[in-house]
Amino acid sequence: MMKAAIMGFGTVGSGVYEVLDRNADVVAKNAGDAIEVKYILDLRDFPDAPYQEKFIKDFAIIENDPEVSLVAETMGGKGAAYEFTKRCLLAGKHVVTSNKELVATHGAELLAIAKEKNVNYLFEASVGGGIPIIRPMFQCLTANHMTHITGILNGTTNYILTRMIGAGLDFETALKEAQAKGYAEANPAADVEGMDACRKICILSAIAYGDHVYPEFVETEGITKITLQDVEYAAQANCVVKLLGRAVSNADETFYAFVAPHFVAKTCPLACVDDVFNAIMVTGDMLGDSMFYGQGAGKLATASAVVADLIDCARHQAKRRDIGWGDGSRKLVRPLDSFASKWYIRLSGADAANKLAGQFPGCEMLESVQEGEAACITGELTTAEMKQAQEALGNVLGCMRML
Amino acid sequence: MMKAAIMGFGTVGSGVYEVLDRNADVVAKNAGDAIEVKYILDLRDFPDAPYQEKFIKDFAIIENDPEVSLVAETMGGKGAAYEFTKRCLLAGKHVVTSNKELVATHGAELLAIAKEKNVNYLFEASVGGGIPIIRPMFQCLTANHMTHITGILNGTTNYILTRMIGAGLDFETALKEAQAKGYAEANPAADVEGMDACRKICILSAIAYGDHVYPEFVETEGITKITLQDVEYAAQANCVVKLLGRAVSNADETFYAFVAPHFVAKTCPLACVDDVFNAIMVTGDMLGDSMFYGQGAGKLATASAVVADLIDCARHQAKRRDIGWGDGSRKLVRPLDSFASKWYIRLSGADAANKLAGQFPGCEMLESVQEGEAACITGELTTAEMKQAQEALGNVLGCMRML
Repeated sequence: MMKAAIMGFGTVGSGVYEVLDRNADVVAKNAGDAIEVKYILDLRDFPDAPYQEKFIKDFAIIENDPEVSLVAETMGGKGAAYEFTKRCLLAGKHVVTSNKELVATHGAELLAIAKEKNVNYLFEASVGGGIPIIRPMFQCLTANHMTHITGILNGTTNYILTRMIGAGLDFETALKEAQAKGYAEANPAADVEGMDACRKICILSAIAYGDHVYPEFVETEGITKITLQDVEYAAQANCVVKLLGRAVSNADETFYAFVAPHFVAKTCPLACVDDVFNAIMVTGDMLGDSMFYGQGAGKLATASAVVADLIDCARHQAKRRDIGWGDGSRKLVRPLDSFASKWYIRLSGADAANKLAGQFPGCEMLESVQEGEAACITGELTTAEMKQAQEALGNVLGCMRML
Repeated sequence: MMKAAIMGFGTVGSGVYEVLDRNADVVAKNAGDAIEVKYILDLRDFPDAPYQEKFIKDFAIIENDPEVSLVAETMGGKGAAYEFTKRCLLAGKHVVTSNKELVATHGAELLAIAKEKNVNYLFEASVGGGIPIIRPMFQCLTANHMTHITGILNGTTNYILTRMIGAGLDFETALKEAQAKGYAEANPAADVEGMDACRKICILSAIAYGDHVYPEFVETEGITKITLQDVEYAAQANCVVKLLGRAVSNADETFYAFVAPHFVAKTCPLACVDDVFNAIMVTGDMLGDSMFYGQGAGKLATASAVVADLIDCARHQAKRRDIGWGDGSRKLVRPLDSFASKWYIRLSGADAANKLAGQFPGCEMLESVQEGEAACITGELTTAEMKQAQEALGNVLGCMRML
């Protein structure tokens, strides 16, 4: 019998308890021994929970109990979660987490401490919820240079975009619906402004390229400015609008990493990923494209990934998984200025079509969906060139890269 | 420097050499040491290959060279590949393979020998080519009871069906095109009759349910009888025709395992998987659906999975991965008779529509695409019930389960 602690009894934390409880048979079989939750750390009271004796409010009890070898951190944030994770690792306990913010901010340091103390710090649930992506990247794609990572990494924004595309709702209405269904928070900024996707692409590119990627180095644009007109133009171009987190490697060691809404061709498997589902496309120089699809959030899906990490720790008590990356000092993220792609651009004004045709010779003009505006698909342009063109044009109503 | 041998220098074997050579940097970094190919075993001559000194024709050289610790078996088949794999494992060498036929036939025995000799026998490339699926099932979905596995497991048949659906080619023409493009063998039976998909669902269900599944216990139907009319009726029902390998668990320990063409709703992510791509949907009781997508075949994609397994062996020289399953004696595969689903059925005869409506009250009638026939979608029926109905009706032109 191995003893575990759960830190944070919110959606994911209570899910972890539920998975360990309901699937105790398969957990014990795969872990080689039963895993029992000895403590649940939360400052709140849960008077209706049947296992009252497990709740504690003092972290030191976990830290000082040598019997507890496995800890699931499902608190979120980078305040107490950071401190407690560090102290657990320093106390020689394995820690697993669903906390993308913490991994994206302090991952390199926490992995280094884990290495020093010969314990595991695993975070499969931090990207893509229940979708296996972290472990495949560390273990299955190891014969490849990863040239591209392209992910629909946030379920809330994907739901909103799906409803805008499929039901013709505008952004505000689709957001309200997402909130009513519990898919979006009362304060939806972290999702709709792209911060959540940003943290996830930070983690994925750190794995792929071996050095920590801090969120502040990743240009991030959300979906708040997307309109139904953009969605219509996308359909004309045989595309759908998707918020993508992307990493693209260069011939040297540098890479681009960014989050932005894109036009995605309907023939791309990512275009079929709807509602709250997530998908991550990883392109290797030998493998080509492979895609991982599933529920990017949700209590039990995410919790099942946390529990799989607990099982992995249980199996590897003695020999830790040798995962980690540099401290970010190599500054491998290259500014987007030189990153080239085709673009969608939409302009207002009576002579908008002429101005677009003049600015982007040979562009593919789309049929205007509204009087007094025009839109087109350009040829390949760098981000710097597109910025210049926008300044020259003025009155830009919308602009997105084509995937 | 670790020494490896490649047994079989066909498409995959030569790809393994190429990946090890071209990506030597990333292989060495991830394996912790360089991997050098010391021998290539093949009875044929390859006078144009630049590394002539590595080619050997006598297996005993590999078997008796203690310096060779890693062996990639890419011969295929279950004759010499079986004997050589066994002898390598008995000689204490790690073996990795892309050989689904061998794993589906002798996997339990070979894994047991690997366990006894404390070496690895890994086979990520045997299912889904380069798609990571075996390792995620063993490591990432461990907190779940896997309720369903649903896979597009054969690229050749998926290409043929894609061309039938998208370009209106009939089966024979699409098959010829696939052969011309090198996607289908001169003798396409193993692909189009479903045997290849059968071997893969055997492997996936052995992993999910813990006991060997012999191909002869898996009811297998290919795509040779699929017509353009079937494809049209599918479109009417908002579906596409896909060849699926499926495993479905029951409340007791038994499960259904079978291969057959299906109507797949266009809203299902599997419906978007086209051309030679493969995808495997795994449904866990906690996780829900997750899907793994990518190139199911192809020289470098498949080879990159073989090399990833070599890297994994290199990392785990001392402590083998504890994978395996029972010898199949538990006979967990339940006959399909009691398996229920909705069905598509197509009948010839002037009174076909009336006969269908009489046989399947409340069925959803499709619009006839050809005079003198009718087709419908039934309610839930077991396989036994559908067989009885077919006998009662006579003149059945086509019949498939709905996913």
